Amino acid sequence: MKDFAGSAAIHALGGFAALAIAKRLGPRKGRFNSDGSVNVFAPSNIPLASAGAFILWFGWFAFNAGSTLDASNKALASIAHNTMLSGAAGGASALFVTMKKYGKADPSMVMNGVLSGLVAITAGCAFVSQWSAVLIGLVSGVIVVYATLFVDALKIDDPVGAVAVHGFNGVFGTFAVGLFDSTQGLLTTGHASLFITQLLGALTVIVWGFVSGALIANVCDSTVGLRATEREEEEGLDMAYHGIPAYNELERFADLPGGLYDFEETTGIRVAPLNKKNAVG
Amino acid sequence: MKDFAGSAAIHALGGFAALAIAKRLGPRKGRFNSDGSVNVFAPSNIPLASAGAFILWFGWFAFNAGSTLDASNKALASIAHNTMLSGAAGGASALFVTMKKYGKADPSMVMNGVLSGLVAITAGCAFVSQWSAVLIGLVSGVIVVYATLFVDALKIDDPVGAVAVHGFNGVFGTFAVGLFDSTQGLLTTGHASLFITQLLGALTVIVWGFVSGALIANVCDSTVGLRATEREEEEGLDMAYHGIPAYNELERFADLPGGLYDFEETTGIRVAPLNKKNAVG
Amino acid sequence: MKDFAGSAAIHALGGFAALAIAKRLGPRKGRFNSDGSVNVFAPSNIPLASAGAFILWFGWFAFNAGSTLDASNKALASIAHNTMLSGAAGGASALFVTMKKYGKADPSMVMNGVLSGLVAITAGCAFVSQWSAVLIGLVSGVIVVYATLFVDALKIDDPVGAVAVHGFNGVFGTFAVGLFDSTQGLLTTGHASLFITQLLGALTVIVWGFVSGALIANVCDSTVGLRATEREEEEGLDMAYHGIPAYNELERFADLPGGLYDFEETTGIRVAPLNKKNAVG
Repeated sequence: MKDFAGSAAIHALGGFAALAIAKRLGPRKGRFNSDGSVNVFAPSNIPLASAGAFILWFGWFAFNAGSTLDASNKALASIAHNTMLSGAAGGASALFVTMKKYGKADPSMVMNGVLSGLVAITAGCAFVSQWSAVLIGLVSGVIVVYATLFVDALKIDDPVGAVAVHGFNGVFGTFAVGLFDSTQGLLTTGHASLFITQLLGALTVIVWGFVSGALIANVCDSTVGLRATEREEEEGLDMAYHGIPAYNELERFADLPGGLYDFEETTGIRVAPLNKKNAVG
Repeated sequence: MKDFAGSAAIHALGGFAALAIAKRLGPRKGRFNSDGSVNVFAPSNIPLASAGAFILWFGWFAFNAGSTLDASNKALASIAHNTMLSGAAGGASALFVTMKKYGKADPSMVMNGVLSGLVAITAGCAFVSQWSAVLIGLVSGVIVVYATLFVDALKIDDPVGAVAVHGFNGVFGTFAVGLFDSTQGLLTTGHASLFITQLLGALTVIVWGFVSGALIANVCDSTVGLRATEREEEEGLDMAYHGIPAYNELERFADLPGGLYDFEETTGIRVAPLNKKNAVG
Repeated sequence: MKDFAGSAAIHALGGFAALAIAKRLGPRKGRFNSDGSVNVFAPSNIPLASAGAFILWFGWFAFNAGSTLDASNKALASIAHNTMLSGAAGGASALFVTMKKYGKADPSMVMNGVLSGLVAITAGCAFVSQWSAVLIGLVSGVIVVYATLFVDALKIDDPVGAVAVHGFNGVFGTFAVGLFDSTQGLLTTGHASLFITQLLGALTVIVWGFVSGALIANVCDSTVGLRATEREEEEGLDMAYHGIPAYNELERFADLPGGLYDFEETTGIRVAPLNKKNAVG
């Protein structure tokens, strides 16, 4: 089985473990309605999320090319090139699918499309041609849109798309090596042997990931606990677990009627009067 | 003509094409007043913009040094060094000019000064000395401040300074090679031949960029359309084209009297009650 | 004295100069109460601060490994590896200390723990083993939590933890070389000579840094002035010195009763009506 930098060993494994854990954990309050419809929790900061996606993309060059474990390897450039092409193609196809399907160019799905292209090329980046990398990316960007809807339909709450991005595209990337490998691929050479190996490998990883994830979630749930309390969930985990708001907007709301909680009372931390004054304007 | 990594072929070309397109597109509503004065749309997030400028700066080392197309080239270090020096000098001179001119250290102009220094050294990074790189950067930081005012005076709305940063400093960087080239520069060797070539090249690129941009804008405007509708512009393009707000603040306003629009009604997406509750405090 | 990439020459020096300058400058209004208790100014944007910590971490690989001044040096990998290990260990121990001490996983202290691990390994990254790098990082993450409390107890206001992170851990990193150096360390070889040298070196840097900082602060205070006026401090230095708000929220507040100031009146800049309308919802 060929899995150069880990579409199977890292992404498919993690993605299907995440599926089992998210299933056990249950959805966030208000995520699914009793009539079967789905509510959206809008992301707090799209520009920062985009910066994060770019940083991941940049890191992926080191991850894939660095998996040669040899800084003088002549293949570094073509591996990095394939990584770039597949990520860009994944973002582009997710863009067109959401524009066609929803009439809007959904930025969060474009980011997930880029990451899907990167996940899908991780197994094959050292084994496939540039055109194959583009094709793999294009397909991955379509997969992520429908995989996201499929996970929603299972009533499993996957806030960052771990299952759709890493699970489904990790599996796709694994068997894509069987299709596009330059010397043994089904579509490139007509030989089916590697493809069958890759399929079996991907299937094994799905089962192994899901069962491991279910076991881990089960053990955590029965011992240290897996889920925040309802009170913590309503308050937000930032305050409950980290004692600080992400964007420091709560002081402003704390003094407004209907504010969820009082920062100083909740945390026992005294806030400087000048900070509070600036916050409440 | 010498244009190592593309002050002319990329930046001047793109900047003057942008000028023609922005002219055709017309300014944002409320950008210019009938008495000739100018209104400012304040940036939404200065720290994130600064992070973006730093990421561009970091990428520029790869862009300029990578234009050798040879990872073992001994010139990589001096090219990267010139890139660093010119960017830093551009930021510094823009800082001092805004402090002197407006009495404030304008952070967005400092970022544009850094980018201007990077744009201006792109043509000459492999051909000029370190001191020349510093001088080129210092001049570019002055150019960007006055070029921004000049574009404003033309009543052309250039929200990110594409014309001032890339157009004007791409041209300056192109003829700066003619002045500072170590072996053929007018100021360094007294020979005018390269300088004249660079001037002609820059002029050609200005005309080519502006005419191409005008043609492209014209074709778009007559076919698929170039400009958002007035309703989309008032709503903001994030909602109109992407269906999601950059910072997820609209749910809060949606329920306030005077809110511009109702998120759920506008997009058809149901927002989870908990998310809405957190947003409205 | 051994100080490979500058725990002493950069971080300890800067940190103790910062201590002297912060002492002279005095705390922000409302930072300390007359009963000896401490108020917190909550950070405005934790996710962006985390991105900044990651960018620093990434840059540190270049800083430490690049201090070999030789891109072909075989030691680059082990230096980068030690840098990674110590930063990660520093973040982990700061995490556990804050969880134990405050019952919350404090994200800003975790970031400072990572930076502390990086500061502490800067002197020894080329001289110590991987296990020593982990140990140095673990200790640095504990130091930063208590050093922060110590600086608070001195009633010195250190908004970004420069003294706790760079000063204290720069000193610790300097004498940690004397403990863990592979060929001369006290704990690794039993020889005390290098350790004594490192201690003397660290002490010299503390004194030199503090005295230099005190002199610089003194000269500034007596000539160009060191501190913003009370009015500027209340308004916020963003507006007073840069003429622009970090997050463009002030237009919204400007029109609310109780708003601190009017943007257009304060800056003389006219804001576009559409921008203002979007801001106030």
